[in-house]
Amino acid sequence: MANETLDVVGIGNAIVDVIAHADDAFLVKHGLNKGAMTLIDAARAEALYAVMGPGIECSGGSAGNTMAGLASLGGRGAYIGKVRDDQLGQVFRHDIRAAGIAFDTLPTKSGAPTARCLVLVTSDAQRTMNTYLGACVELGPEDIDPFAIGAAQVTYLEGYLWDPPRAKEAFRKAAELAHAAGHKVSLTLSDPFCVERHRAEFRDLVRNHVDILFANEAEILSLYEVEDFDRAIAAARVECELTAVTRSAAGSVVVTKDSVQAVKAAPVVRVVDTTGAGDLYASGFLYGYTRGKAPAECARLGAIAAAEVISHFGARPEIALKTLIDPGAGARA
Amino acid sequence: MANETLDVVGIGNAIVDVIAHADDAFLVKHGLNKGAMTLIDAARAEALYAVMGPGIECSGGSAGNTMAGLASLGGRGAYIGKVRDDQLGQVFRHDIRAAGIAFDTLPTKSGAPTARCLVLVTSDAQRTMNTYLGACVELGPEDIDPFAIGAAQVTYLEGYLWDPPRAKEAFRKAAELAHAAGHKVSLTLSDPFCVERHRAEFRDLVRNHVDILFANEAEILSLYEVEDFDRAIAAARVECELTAVTRSAAGSVVVTKDSVQAVKAAPVVRVVDTTGAGDLYASGFLYGYTRGKAPAECARLGAIAAAEVISHFGARPEIALKTLIDPGAGARA
Repeated sequence: MANETLDVVGIGNAIVDVIAHADDAFLVKHGLNKGAMTLIDAARAEALYAVMGPGIECSGGSAGNTMAGLASLGGRGAYIGKVRDDQLGQVFRHDIRAAGIAFDTLPTKSGAPTARCLVLVTSDAQRTMNTYLGACVELGPEDIDPFAIGAAQVTYLEGYLWDPPRAKEAFRKAAELAHAAGHKVSLTLSDPFCVERHRAEFRDLVRNHVDILFANEAEILSLYEVEDFDRAIAAARVECELTAVTRSAAGSVVVTKDSVQAVKAAPVVRVVDTTGAGDLYASGFLYGYTRGKAPAECARLGAIAAAEVISHFGARPEIALKTLIDPGAGARA
Repeated sequence: MANETLDVVGIGNAIVDVIAHADDAFLVKHGLNKGAMTLIDAARAEALYAVMGPGIECSGGSAGNTMAGLASLGGRGAYIGKVRDDQLGQVFRHDIRAAGIAFDTLPTKSGAPTARCLVLVTSDAQRTMNTYLGACVELGPEDIDPFAIGAAQVTYLEGYLWDPPRAKEAFRKAAELAHAAGHKVSLTLSDPFCVERHRAEFRDLVRNHVDILFANEAEILSLYEVEDFDRAIAAARVECELTAVTRSAAGSVVVTKDSVQAVKAAPVVRVVDTTGAGDLYASGFLYGYTRGKAPAECARLGAIAAAEVISHFGARPEIALKTLIDPGAGARA
């Protein structure tokens, strides 16, 4: 890998999603926090799974989805995350490699099983996520491959990595290696509750280690503990080279040291499941960024990738995204 | 269960489907038999999985799909099939129970893992199935619950049960129990290659044990080794009380001792994945049959259930089928 050039290396919690339909009454009855990612333990995961409807299983994980999207656009990436050597771990490994992403993190051979996220999708296409971290808690700095980091223009990390105990050390090691190589570090804030859990550390990170920041509106307001969107982006602008804030159907705002630009969302015939919208926005954005595109064009590519993933169940693209950004790509491939 | 009345108990190979898109070139390159179900061993399953694209996992298995469809229509059913106590076995167990079907077959605790079927779906919506039977080979007569069989109006069996070694004994035991209770025995021929593998035994079965026969055109032609559809249904007519032969977009033909009726297929906006079409046809048909509906009405219900399942990825219904046959059902539920 040292001789190759990667666009992005993504580091995240390696998770298999279990997706089922549910109605609001189900969410209320079982005390689920609609629209959020809630951490659950093994017993809760078992109890919730027992009452959920029939599901489908798809590989997920925020940064994993982003990397799958990057590959689908034609980008080159690697992924670092921890699964166990069990059936769901095999599924995760298969899917990300089959998407075209290098994935060589060693699986655990004992202990907790591969992580899963019980995703309830309501008829308004909102997703409510309940994550059992399982083997993800074993990710540590020893899993960071310096060659992958050294080969990638951008090292991309998910804020969710602050939930397992040692992943933040992995994160810091990766960020240091990336910067030492003259490369960029990118972070997604992941979830407003995740920001709440780790605000002080996230503030330090963003100020001192992050070049490219991804967030949605709720997350960036929570990060800076402000109620005003303009104040939040003004704060991010001082700290990061580039900030992209997604605003659902209202599109996104890209902020550089000397510009703030609003970019529209891409049209979607029918929104089915919003799982992965932010992850795929990051795919498109980073695909553009690593090709030297201007921020507004990066945001436009992000919007196209996000629009595809919310038009169906599951958080990874169902069609080759490169055909959406370059309609001739499919024919030439 | 002895005090309850079930509509149908289904017996089959308990399988988790791994579904991915592929093109015809992929099928040719890897020697796959387009449109058929091919049995593969563990090594072949691993090799084929390694070259397949990213997948999604859904519970499957022919009779399992039929029972899930029956429950989705509002019918009452139980399922008998063998999984291992592994993650995919938990997925299968969860999904069929969550669909509303009783499932109490003991899982194996050692040996081969839960069965999986690698399903390649081409852009013409055709599915090419490659099944590793895994734990299914352990199904035997000891797994047949006499109370379930005694409680069900129809015992429904898939022809695929002739592939694992001891399942046919289970099948025979179930058929005897059903008839001893004055109930009906139904069989689906499953797949033309399956018919080829077991033709002599299937002929004996159909002649001596089966009241309600399901087949598609290729299967029934293969069963009677004739090239003429009318000859095939004339042969079945002598042997079975009721025969339903599906003919894809041309609908189905239902044959009784004194009638042959053609019933149209139900409209589908876009056929996405034909996996489960025959299974869901049987769901609708048996739902009608166990409610005393006339054969043509049973076939109409079968067509509606089949139309839903071919309009999306995966072999089990995504919406409550009862809302399709009785549009007020959803509102009253």
